[in-house]
Amino acid sequence: MSESCDPLESSITIFQVNAADPLKNIRVVLCAPVHPGNIGAAARAMKTMGLARLYLVAPRRFPDPEAEWRASRATDVLAHATVCSALDEALQGVGLAIACTARSRELAVPEMTAREAAAEAVGVARAQQVACVFGNETFGLTTAEVNCCQRLATIPANSRYSSLNLAAAVQVIAYELRLAARGDAAGPAKQRQLASFEELEGFYAHLERAMIEVGFFDPRHPKKLMPRLRRLFARARVEREEINILRGIVTSFQRHKPKR
Amino acid sequence: MSESCDPLESSITIFQVNAADPLKNIRVVLCAPVHPGNIGAAARAMKTMGLARLYLVAPRRFPDPEAEWRASRATDVLAHATVCSALDEALQGVGLAIACTARSRELAVPEMTAREAAAEAVGVARAQQVACVFGNETFGLTTAEVNCCQRLATIPANSRYSSLNLAAAVQVIAYELRLAARGDAAGPAKQRQLASFEELEGFYAHLERAMIEVGFFDPRHPKKLMPRLRRLFARARVEREEINILRGIVTSFQRHKPKR
Repeated sequence: MSESCDPLESSITIFQVNAADPLKNIRVVLCAPVHPGNIGAAARAMKTMGLARLYLVAPRRFPDPEAEWRASRATDVLAHATVCSALDEALQGVGLAIACTARSRELAVPEMTAREAAAEAVGVARAQQVACVFGNETFGLTTAEVNCCQRLATIPANSRYSSLNLAAAVQVIAYELRLAARGDAAGPAKQRQLASFEELEGFYAHLERAMIEVGFFDPRHPKKLMPRLRRLFARARVEREEINILRGIVTSFQRHKPKR
Repeated sequence: MSESCDPLESSITIFQVNAADPLKNIRVVLCAPVHPGNIGAAARAMKTMGLARLYLVAPRRFPDPEAEWRASRATDVLAHATVCSALDEALQGVGLAIACTARSRELAVPEMTAREAAAEAVGVARAQQVACVFGNETFGLTTAEVNCCQRLATIPANSRYSSLNLAAAVQVIAYELRLAARGDAAGPAKQRQLASFEELEGFYAHLERAMIEVGFFDPRHPKKLMPRLRRLFARARVEREEINILRGIVTSFQRHKPKR
């Protein structure tokens, strides 16, 4: 029923963007969901708001009759779901990845409310793929998962009990996306060609290698250096051309012999 | 576990209004819910948003272990739920009753979006009790039930599939109520220590010098390099500490001798 995450296939679909309906370019990514019922309920939540692209990263049980039952008449969303083994696969070709949570955290990617994030997501989705990423039911998003994203969208919640059900969180975000898409009739601002997930990751890896070479970064004592740099560049929403400039600068530094 | 709907008791509680927290004065009323799982999930949705007062009108099965399970750590909301036999009972003492639905209808009751209704509900709830009324899973709200209310709040949804799960609808309304109660003023906006103008300029000058040293930047043919980099970092709104990190990286690159 579900498609496997074939890299070639996803590289073909990357640029298939539906300009008329930004919601069609927004995928919902569930990381390691445990309960198939939540997968089905998330599919239903998506469809009620006009979202259709579901990605499942290492689901414990899928497909499953419980998912079908809870999906109600959104079983088509389940049938077209893409199952991946790791988050990177689910983010291939994505221009903006948003980690969705009810918990605020220190030193993650730039934080904003669900409403603000939805507005940004819809703007980007007019020209590029966008992902809304949700964590596991028990543990939420891991730091590594959040760091794969350029935004942290928080759902304002009761500080003494912020544990939204997974599908309920998907419902709230999908609802905000729908409102943003309807309200965004004003038209997009100038479209920027944002760097894709792979391009950004390529830059981070390059920068990290170079910093290790010059002794600025010690991978045995990483402290928070890479997360901090990721957060900085995530805030900027780096364009494709800028990635090329930044990598050019790093390469020049690597090759240069100081005259002394 | 649940209180019965004793008219005398409810007439006593009518005027106990918590002025400090309007959410405490907003009850969620579920009309004839069929699945106990939905009752539990609704209780959880309420608690995550700071709502506590659940009214159940003629529930098919309650209490029920399925409700407890789906409530997760919101079983206190279930324990204090009020079971009524008819909607009028659940609306005793209520100053504003809002029928909540994803379907718009031709009725005498004024229609508004969930967001507009939440703003009005919170305004009223500063001084009086308010009810948000939800229909049965299969049939939604009956015309008679809607006519018991003074407002119809619609959740904007996919016109081809607007069937939100009951608890998901409660989650969306509860979320809007919470945002309205917070006054929308409270964004995430933890105060960041942004770099000053001088600090930013110091970094740009440092980076430019270093790029000249390594031959990446030729000041006689500047093209748009520095303006592009400025634009990138301006978008990020760089923090003071980040400037220190960036300058540290550049300095390490300047000092390093490649082994070749």
